[in-house]
Amino acid sequence: MKDIKTYVDKHQKRFLDELIALLKIPSISADKAYKKEVFNTADAVAERLKEAGCDLVEICETPGYPIVYGELIKDKNLPTVLVYGHYDVQPPDPLDLWDSAPFEPVIKKTELHPDGAIFARGACDDKGQMYMHVKALEYMTQNDDLPCNVKFMIEGEEEVGSENLGWFIARNQEKLANDVILISDTGMIAKDTPSITTGLRGLSYVEVEVTGPNRDLHSGLYGGAVANPINILTKMIASLHDENNHITIPGFYDKVEELSAEERAKMAEAPFSLENYQKALDIDSVYGEAGYSTNERNSIRPTLDVNGIWGGYIGEGAKTVIASKAYAKISMRLVPDQDWKEITELFKKHFESIAPKGVRVKVKPHHGGQAYVTPIDSLGYQAAEKAYEKTFGKTPIPQRSGGSIPIVSLFERELNSKTILMGFGLDSDAIHSPNEHFGVWNFFKGIETIPHFYHEFTKLKMAEK
Amino acid sequence: MKDIKTYVDKHQKRFLDELIALLKIPSISADKAYKKEVFNTADAVAERLKEAGCDLVEICETPGYPIVYGELIKDKNLPTVLVYGHYDVQPPDPLDLWDSAPFEPVIKKTELHPDGAIFARGACDDKGQMYMHVKALEYMTQNDDLPCNVKFMIEGEEEVGSENLGWFIARNQEKLANDVILISDTGMIAKDTPSITTGLRGLSYVEVEVTGPNRDLHSGLYGGAVANPINILTKMIASLHDENNHITIPGFYDKVEELSAEERAKMAEAPFSLENYQKALDIDSVYGEAGYSTNERNSIRPTLDVNGIWGGYIGEGAKTVIASKAYAKISMRLVPDQDWKEITELFKKHFESIAPKGVRVKVKPHHGGQAYVTPIDSLGYQAAEKAYEKTFGKTPIPQRSGGSIPIVSLFERELNSKTILMGFGLDSDAIHSPNEHFGVWNFFKGIETIPHFYHEFTKLKMAEK
Repeated sequence: MKDIKTYVDKHQKRFLDELIALLKIPSISADKAYKKEVFNTADAVAERLKEAGCDLVEICETPGYPIVYGELIKDKNLPTVLVYGHYDVQPPDPLDLWDSAPFEPVIKKTELHPDGAIFARGACDDKGQMYMHVKALEYMTQNDDLPCNVKFMIEGEEEVGSENLGWFIARNQEKLANDVILISDTGMIAKDTPSITTGLRGLSYVEVEVTGPNRDLHSGLYGGAVANPINILTKMIASLHDENNHITIPGFYDKVEELSAEERAKMAEAPFSLENYQKALDIDSVYGEAGYSTNERNSIRPTLDVNGIWGGYIGEGAKTVIASKAYAKISMRLVPDQDWKEITELFKKHFESIAPKGVRVKVKPHHGGQAYVTPIDSLGYQAAEKAYEKTFGKTPIPQRSGGSIPIVSLFERELNSKTILMGFGLDSDAIHSPNEHFGVWNFFKGIETIPHFYHEFTKLKMAEK
Repeated sequence: MKDIKTYVDKHQKRFLDELIALLKIPSISADKAYKKEVFNTADAVAERLKEAGCDLVEICETPGYPIVYGELIKDKNLPTVLVYGHYDVQPPDPLDLWDSAPFEPVIKKTELHPDGAIFARGACDDKGQMYMHVKALEYMTQNDDLPCNVKFMIEGEEEVGSENLGWFIARNQEKLANDVILISDTGMIAKDTPSITTGLRGLSYVEVEVTGPNRDLHSGLYGGAVANPINILTKMIASLHDENNHITIPGFYDKVEELSAEERAKMAEAPFSLENYQKALDIDSVYGEAGYSTNERNSIRPTLDVNGIWGGYIGEGAKTVIASKAYAKISMRLVPDQDWKEITELFKKHFESIAPKGVRVKVKPHHGGQAYVTPIDSLGYQAAEKAYEKTFGKTPIPQRSGGSIPIVSLFERELNSKTILMGFGLDSDAIHSPNEHFGVWNFFKGIETIPHFYHEFTKLKMAEK
């Protein structure tokens, strides 16, 4: 294989400039106000794919935001790698906590990133990691070093639950046919500790509304005499966990995959410092389900978190009011064998059942996805392992992630192929938070590693035939 | 006494036009953005007082918004009535629930108000009721029918806790010397059931902040492993009431005045229909402290209500985030013998004590005031009773209100005189809510009744000498 490192070094500046241009477009899929920018981002991604050497690029309309499809078919008899990524980003608020504007990327050195990191919303999740694949393709086409066929599917609704991806895949199964799916939308343990994500949590995201009196009331004249929707909402949410932080929704744990003591022991080998973890978050203690370690709590155990809550007067000063309505956005992270639709139903049924007289409750399911596990003996995992060994000089650690990429299980079901999650981000990259960033070193290391995966996978796949 | 009814009938249109002009100024004291308008409202009130016949009117500066003072001293040997009111208003939000703009007053007929009601923020609380006193003075000066001295003290910070009124009173005790204080900032039971408020609840208003991790986190990567400030806040708030809806703050009830069975029986005589109450609020059940009736729950019992709560992502769509901070505005209504400063301390101490490891809690006291009771055998009450009998042909019912006018107990302490609360609003006037309004009939009835109070009080006071 030709020297990719030399190629990357030579084009570093251009690669960064191209990524920065992409990061400048505020493609916030959750907020309709940015509709135009989301569409513009799709156009930009299509352009980059053409330039990188795809011989077919399409902007595929969906009922929602378009999916950018690109392909380079060398030979029908060669294996095909399908790259998935997303060009939409999380909303940037709270804006006042950003040190620089979220859509005006800046490169700054940090302790962890002496070569600098790109600070911008989407820098790591997922524009930066998605773009590594585009540049890896450029290297392979420019240097006649592409060993197989490649397809790209870059969507614009990942941050809002990939609402139309299923719709698209169902209509394009032949077009999307592949031997393995490659995604970089996760992280690795550390720069000197490469890891491959083998498990993802599922998700059920709901919004709840509690309605009391038909109008806002004076808290003096009515206080204590009518159900206050905010007080009731806090009572209802608080009751969703017991004193051991187990979730109290009947049936919630029925299908939870219980790991063996041996598996848990293997997990516990991953390097982890509770002290540094707490220090990084400035907390005096972790908090979670009794009987499980921090790494288990956020990977192999299901959870329930309120992502947003609002009601009543939240402006400056004081207002003595009893609100008519209170709201919360609640998400549950699920583990293998929990079905997200079933869990959403269980939540709805339970939450409605615990509403006291005097209020009315609405539960609106938002979106969700199934949990997923990749066997470490699969061809794709084996190829990825070898790729990391070539560029990091180390065997990567298989890791369960607490995050969700709902569509991974969808891929397995609809396209019936395995997904390999090669993530190059770090926990400290603050994805979904103010000051999201992505290390320049990580960006280049990703571009460097990906072509090795293509070669290793093609070798293994051809050997299999 | 000359015929005030004729005078009011003759000037109805002008009285309404003048009030509407006052209601058009958005004097929202809680929101600094309206600073200029609040000051302009003070100027307007001063003008109206001059026109009504005050021989001295001053706009008195304070560290906050000014207090408008006016007086008409007839004879040092005559009794003096001090009228208190406020020209500031509550914030109008949520704006989308108003049928007409809150600061563009309209007069509309309603089932309860066949003569029409003025819809605007402040129509009843308190511009409309305050202005009844200005017009009552106009009648008395225009018709040489003022039997005593009168002083006005109209402030602009009542809706934010009258922060500087104590400061002003302490510096002007001689200027404010009086024999009785008259306030119209409460309601009456019904148009055909006049009532005088003899009791008010005290208030303690606080804001709480719960801080977890030092930044917003991805709920997938951290969910279940760290304390989520919103979940914790709901747990803490929920724990402030037990299963009987008693407040769990240690010492909270220690000084609560317990009414005798006889007093409670007398209270229960006030006409009240639980069915209509629930129907008016569109609720299937009332909710509150076990062992007390609805009327007791919102008058003689202390309460704790969340007035506002916020944290995390509250925008459109979904964001899978664990917020770094969550907030709530909480107010407690207090009853006689509970000291608001002591209760605020008890709350602070307790709330901080129940914070679990993994979060930090801040409690910021906002403002407060003491509860108050007016004896029905006081001169002022006797005079008010007679005044209502003259204009309503009925003896008013003494009533405990759940609301708070913190400064009433301040008046008693600093000026050592009793306050009479002659309220002409109705529960249905939606004060502090969208579509606040004030019946035109009530407005005129108030103007008509007030001069009778002046005459009755002067008679009783002079007889006492």
